[in-house]
Amino acid sequence: MQRFKIPEITVERLSIYLRIAKKLNDSDIFSSQRLAELVGTSDGQVRKDLAYFGEFGVPGQGYKVDRLKQEISRILGLDRDQGIALVGVGKLGSALLDSPRFRSKELRIRTAFDSDPSKVGKTRQGVKIQEMDAMSKVISQEKIEIGIITTPTAAAHEVANRLIEAGIKAILNFAPTRIVVPDYVKLKNVDFSIQLEGLSYFLAQHSL
Amino acid sequence: MQRFKIPEITVERLSIYLRIAKKLNDSDIFSSQRLAELVGTSDGQVRKDLAYFGEFGVPGQGYKVDRLKQEISRILGLDRDQGIALVGVGKLGSALLDSPRFRSKELRIRTAFDSDPSKVGKTRQGVKIQEMDAMSKVISQEKIEIGIITTPTAAAHEVANRLIEAGIKAILNFAPTRIVVPDYVKLKNVDFSIQLEGLSYFLAQHSL
Repeated sequence: MQRFKIPEITVERLSIYLRIAKKLNDSDIFSSQRLAELVGTSDGQVRKDLAYFGEFGVPGQGYKVDRLKQEISRILGLDRDQGIALVGVGKLGSALLDSPRFRSKELRIRTAFDSDPSKVGKTRQGVKIQEMDAMSKVISQEKIEIGIITTPTAAAHEVANRLIEAGIKAILNFAPTRIVVPDYVKLKNVDFSIQLEGLSYFLAQHSL
Repeated sequence: MQRFKIPEITVERLSIYLRIAKKLNDSDIFSSQRLAELVGTSDGQVRKDLAYFGEFGVPGQGYKVDRLKQEISRILGLDRDQGIALVGVGKLGSALLDSPRFRSKELRIRTAFDSDPSKVGKTRQGVKIQEMDAMSKVISQEKIEIGIITTPTAAAHEVANRLIEAGIKAILNFAPTRIVVPDYVKLKNVDFSIQLEGLSYFLAQHSL
């Protein structure tokens, strides 16, 4: 099966299309106009995005919900069995463990690590908290492919290195610091402060 | 004072430059090469970014740390007195309230709201949790300019509407749902699921 390189912004919109399709009935057919309306983009944008993965619309009618879900899931790799490891079970880490968003069938936090001995051995939402030294073994045994870093800033880079040594190739980093990873590792940063400062910039512009 | 429209990606890099400058001594002078190295971008990129707000480098030497911090803070509007209101003191909301990132001098959560009567009236990190009906009054009295939404998905859109009615012009939304706002309001979404699915897409591409 051939897969094409799709721009990052299109990949993000595919996630949104999938989220919307999940709320509809499998047998529904909907037009690109309708999908565009639900997402808040243009008809042309939807058709362009979906054209990346071949023709599967029903000519003159639109897209079948079940087919759309199936195709987008495949493109996003959600049909693969992939686990997530979370490192740092502090306040933010605990909030993520509790979130239903990280307990879906396709993307599930399967294991967690923390350096605090008082947390190690405990279970949260069915996820066992393990000691840092077990990382390499657990990640390879449980076929973990994605790492989430919710440690304090000072520990984040070393944790990233350990995750990569253990075989992780995709990292979601919540610590507000710059992490350098090799080319074959994909890193995404969730940085609340940068987003907030972006809002502050907007307000400063408009207060003139 | 004139301000220029700066691309969003440049605004994000300014935040990162500021974060790095804060770790250095005020009297240090550093070159664009050095700054580029610390950030992980190119020398040309740094010079282009900083050129948006006029010449303030020392010719042949570089940028003075204190001047750089001052200029970037001004551009980002961090020299203004602006408060943040957080709506939804659940697990994620509590984690944000506890985070030092939202208790800086420049950007501080000043008030919180929740619909749960058992939370109303309590204080967390010095921030009082108030009832939803107090929103409009409190926001105008305390000159709150930014709203953070950490409610369940189903409540997020109504909360956004109430924030906007109360005068909020910038919103950071953590609920995984699409919120429609008027043109004069700036909305940023922090969507963990979309980021994770982006990583999943990367892994699927590279597993072939």
